Amino acid sequence: MASVHSRAARAAGATLVAVASSSPERSRAAAEQLGFASAASSVEELVAHPDVDVVHVCTPNALHAAQAEAVLAAGKHVVCEKPLATSVTDAERLVELAEQAGVVATVPFVYRFYPLVREARARFAAGEMGRITTVLGSYLQDWLLTADDDNWRVDVTDGGRSRAFGDIGSHLVDLLEFITADRVVALAASKSTVFGTRGDRPVSTEDAVALTCQTEGGAIGSLLVSQVAPGRKNRLHLEIAGAEQTLGLDTEQPETIWLGRRAGSQLLPRDADQLAPDAARLCRVPAGHPMGYQDAFDAFAADTYAATRGEEPEGLPRFADGLRAGRITQAVLDSCEQGTWVRL
Amino acid sequence: MASVHSRAARAAGATLVAVASSSPERSRAAAEQLGFASAASSVEELVAHPDVDVVHVCTPNALHAAQAEAVLAAGKHVVCEKPLATSVTDAERLVELAEQAGVVATVPFVYRFYPLVREARARFAAGEMGRITTVLGSYLQDWLLTADDDNWRVDVTDGGRSRAFGDIGSHLVDLLEFITADRVVALAASKSTVFGTRGDRPVSTEDAVALTCQTEGGAIGSLLVSQVAPGRKNRLHLEIAGAEQTLGLDTEQPETIWLGRRAGSQLLPRDADQLAPDAARLCRVPAGHPMGYQDAFDAFAADTYAATRGEEPEGLPRFADGLRAGRITQAVLDSCEQGTWVRL
Amino acid sequence: MASVHSRAARAAGATLVAVASSSPERSRAAAEQLGFASAASSVEELVAHPDVDVVHVCTPNALHAAQAEAVLAAGKHVVCEKPLATSVTDAERLVELAEQAGVVATVPFVYRFYPLVREARARFAAGEMGRITTVLGSYLQDWLLTADDDNWRVDVTDGGRSRAFGDIGSHLVDLLEFITADRVVALAASKSTVFGTRGDRPVSTEDAVALTCQTEGGAIGSLLVSQVAPGRKNRLHLEIAGAEQTLGLDTEQPETIWLGRRAGSQLLPRDADQLAPDAARLCRVPAGHPMGYQDAFDAFAADTYAATRGEEPEGLPRFADGLRAGRITQAVLDSCEQGTWVRL
Amino acid sequence: MASVHSRAARAAGATLVAVASSSPERSRAAAEQLGFASAASSVEELVAHPDVDVVHVCTPNALHAAQAEAVLAAGKHVVCEKPLATSVTDAERLVELAEQAGVVATVPFVYRFYPLVREARARFAAGEMGRITTVLGSYLQDWLLTADDDNWRVDVTDGGRSRAFGDIGSHLVDLLEFITADRVVALAASKSTVFGTRGDRPVSTEDAVALTCQTEGGAIGSLLVSQVAPGRKNRLHLEIAGAEQTLGLDTEQPETIWLGRRAGSQLLPRDADQLAPDAARLCRVPAGHPMGYQDAFDAFAADTYAATRGEEPEGLPRFADGLRAGRITQAVLDSCEQGTWVRL
Repeated sequence: MASVHSRAARAAGATLVAVASSSPERSRAAAEQLGFASAASSVEELVAHPDVDVVHVCTPNALHAAQAEAVLAAGKHVVCEKPLATSVTDAERLVELAEQAGVVATVPFVYRFYPLVREARARFAAGEMGRITTVLGSYLQDWLLTADDDNWRVDVTDGGRSRAFGDIGSHLVDLLEFITADRVVALAASKSTVFGTRGDRPVSTEDAVALTCQTEGGAIGSLLVSQVAPGRKNRLHLEIAGAEQTLGLDTEQPETIWLGRRAGSQLLPRDADQLAPDAARLCRVPAGHPMGYQDAFDAFAADTYAATRGEEPEGLPRFADGLRAGRITQAVLDSCEQGTWVRL
Repeated sequence: MASVHSRAARAAGATLVAVASSSPERSRAAAEQLGFASAASSVEELVAHPDVDVVHVCTPNALHAAQAEAVLAAGKHVVCEKPLATSVTDAERLVELAEQAGVVATVPFVYRFYPLVREARARFAAGEMGRITTVLGSYLQDWLLTADDDNWRVDVTDGGRSRAFGDIGSHLVDLLEFITADRVVALAASKSTVFGTRGDRPVSTEDAVALTCQTEGGAIGSLLVSQVAPGRKNRLHLEIAGAEQTLGLDTEQPETIWLGRRAGSQLLPRDADQLAPDAARLCRVPAGHPMGYQDAFDAFAADTYAATRGEEPEGLPRFADGLRAGRITQAVLDSCEQGTWVRL
Repeated sequence: MASVHSRAARAAGATLVAVASSSPERSRAAAEQLGFASAASSVEELVAHPDVDVVHVCTPNALHAAQAEAVLAAGKHVVCEKPLATSVTDAERLVELAEQAGVVATVPFVYRFYPLVREARARFAAGEMGRITTVLGSYLQDWLLTADDDNWRVDVTDGGRSRAFGDIGSHLVDLLEFITADRVVALAASKSTVFGTRGDRPVSTEDAVALTCQTEGGAIGSLLVSQVAPGRKNRLHLEIAGAEQTLGLDTEQPETIWLGRRAGSQLLPRDADQLAPDAARLCRVPAGHPMGYQDAFDAFAADTYAATRGEEPEGLPRFADGLRAGRITQAVLDSCEQGTWVRL
Repeated sequence: MASVHSRAARAAGATLVAVASSSPERSRAAAEQLGFASAASSVEELVAHPDVDVVHVCTPNALHAAQAEAVLAAGKHVVCEKPLATSVTDAERLVELAEQAGVVATVPFVYRFYPLVREARARFAAGEMGRITTVLGSYLQDWLLTADDDNWRVDVTDGGRSRAFGDIGSHLVDLLEFITADRVVALAASKSTVFGTRGDRPVSTEDAVALTCQTEGGAIGSLLVSQVAPGRKNRLHLEIAGAEQTLGLDTEQPETIWLGRRAGSQLLPRDADQLAPDAARLCRVPAGHPMGYQDAFDAFAADTYAATRGEEPEGLPRFADGLRAGRITQAVLDSCEQGTWVRL
């Protein structure tokens, strides 16, 4: 993710002052590879660097809380990868510290930055979709399909207690709540760990989660998250039925949304001429020239930096959103372990 | 549905001897419209007709049990629309009576008769898909979208206590279990009734059900059923992930299945040359000339009639399958009402 | 094709009186297999049979003209597979004879019987699509992909001088002209024969034709026809751009049409409630339960038989349409051989 | 396009030294908006700037030749938007001048930089697709759909004699030839100008071109190009049938290619792990996180700059490719005007 972050920072006009990795050698290698002006020998040094205004934390999950806290302690702006922390308590503390510091503290829920996600949100807000009745959602990947697929994320120590849900389920629920302004209030979940070991590691984190949920607005939903789904790479799919129209959205094809209607459904392209202002502002190439993930990440970084200059960009995902994701992840784990519905 | 049944019977070479509807006048009208040789003045008369070998029961749900019982009592073969009965007890009795009568007693779970459904089933049976890890399934319609949409099915007296699940959710689970030979063993469900009245009727039956489930084989799943989903007509969609491949299937487009694979997914057409025997036998026009719902129904009727002649066609949905659907429907209602997981 | 014809006749309520094949033995086998009451020992006998009112000619192309002529000479109604004849002269004579006989004489351009084809036609007729500017069309198959794939159609003696265009290109142009009521008036074509021999036969008929055309209404178009296109089975695709909307249509997925619009395109389902009368009348199962090729063929047969009873069903493809296809096929051959544009 | 060029330059690590527009005021505005360090008062001043190593020419078509020539005369590298020139003679001269200058001179045929375009090319080169038999191609837009849509490109003086073909048809043929290494050798074309005036301008340039073509390798093809196709934004679609497999490619969805096969077609995702080296090197985010147009443009710029440093990146579109496009455009105009096939 460091290359995506650094490209986005550069595209937003930032100067890449310094980078720190897990050792001085790796820091120097990262600086060279990513085009940073210098390598910091430690997080402390990086945070203290006088030319550094914003720090991006994109380290293993278990390190996020302490490192983000260090940035905040230095009174600097921080972008922290999700999960914001591996416990709700830590996430709560970070939200509080960020508020006290009075800095910008964001979490890259980048799917919010696809223009058509904003369009969908605008339409729900305007009441065009009608009251929400059902949600069908999934986030499916296959990069951990076999027992040979290994990564620090599978390890509870580095990655935290939840893997599939914490990593990608959090995106799914964030996007659902962001688009609809409705909130999940109860859920019943079941999880699955397909392989007990990967490489040499014992694995206790889940590969997949299935859940049913209820929202504040009275909708019911079925969600599925998996990292062992052959043929899916990063498919976050949402089909949200309102009383008037259904929204169909797929982050693998973010340039079109499907608006299900009884008398002929519509395929809406990402065409700035036709979109709500908050969607149109994120369009940077003409319709039909696809925008992609890096474009979304660039927009997230640009909006974060705009916020550091005192602007108030719409829809910026902040630490409070990271905390919300942490609470939902905890509810999923609780529900799975207790075999009951859990209220949020 | 009577026109679909009668077309299928005719296509299978049957003679349409007699039809009975809710009154002698309506029976005569039906006979004329559907091309039956005569109109029976009652179910009793129909069942007793010496030239009648098979009776198709396609009346409102609440009548199924008594009418199917009358057919069985006459020692004749019976095709009974689902739900087989509106209570598990009734369905159990019908299964027993059918067995005692020694006749063929089937339920039109017609999606089983799409050739590619058979192909999918053959591939799961052969182990090509691998052990199942997750299921994402939905059956979505929009024909009851507004409060003005009315039908006898919404009425608990005619339709039974469950509507959306009993009517279409039953198809979804039947198809899932038919294809995988795995069984749902536990579920947690939530339901929604969007309109308290439709026309003049008070409505207590559900418009939508969301559920999460576990299977005997260890898979977890998320299912959604709705009759108020704008833009969907009869979309039964299944995405079943195995350890090797994912099956993607959509009954609105039954001529292709998606086989999700990590290194390039496959789109398999309904091409007899490439299919398993039980799939190939159901192909009646060349690949690329779409087969549809009536073709599937014709095949269901043909197989039912073949069974009456002593053949044993593969995959024929019998009363036991109708009972299974009734038990799952009951479990869904119980789970919704108790707010707990229910084991099957 | 005989099984498709006989199923359609039965579905239309016809009695299958007699069938004739290339020998008495094969006639008897066909009668048994297809469910005819008797086998005729010759075409002459069949045509003379007192109970036969309509004869379906579905023999190799080179036999069509003489056999159709025999039916007409007997004063009976005739359905003749396309190409109606292997020369324009023969086709012209058949049109004239049919007119003189005063009988119904039809050619199964069955794609006309997909309900959404009628809907598209109604919308062009009503001016909703706007003046046509461009046409992109193709009919692609792969059943003759390799040199080992053989069939009587590849032989110029049995199949006629044009194969790919005569067999499937004729459908493509018929559908284009049927939907738009515009006519191709000039074309420049190029053809390709990939294998000089198939099995033991020398092959001079073409595997593929590419052409550009102009219509009476001022549109320009690009069409491609091939029987050696890997992955395509019977894909007739049309994308017809009008000044207001584009029609996208694919006969492999005939249950939806795409209506391209500048500000959000529409996917229109085959839903009788929303369609023009001539489209709605062809819907026989609810939306979302797919209709297919046999349904279309059944409707073609039903309309042909209705015409024999004096009705005037909309859009019935008659011998004049078969002649039109023959003229276009000849123009394609001429253009290919002369290397010039040919006017029709 | 200036913003796309400048973003790509910045992403490639370039310093944005100076920009020149049509007046000093507009130059200053462009410098500010795009983030250039300074504004040049003229092309001459820009070209002479000592810190400028590479000049991007993205002005109206009629200015390309003279401005590119000025850059070359200064001995500097040049990126020139297509069409390289509005006459074949001018394009030929530029190729010669670039060669004499010994600099890098490229044309942004950016679709070459979608990773799966490289994958397709590698598979054709390796013989996996088989000998090419047919090509179906189109590039469709709707931004000039109505008479009210106006742009300097519609004017023959600014845009050159060909509009739709010169602007987008050139991409289509470049991509076809780039992927297949086959060459169009003959074509018969027809063109259409839908509106005689747009705004106040008389319009002689074409809105659409339909053509059929033959390739050196013996394939035949049908191509369509239009800027008045409702519902299409920038859809360049190619379906290239080989003896073994068909390639299906759509630049509006460049993250998947369809590999048509007789026994089950494949959908290949843009997944670096599975791709040829020249495709994998262009992947910069994981599979399933879509890459888009700006990513492709960034890669084009990065490769151009790599070439200025003496590297020899695969597939870089140079002035010779721009000249090739000019020759094909001229052949299309000749064919349309003469009503004959034209050989290249």
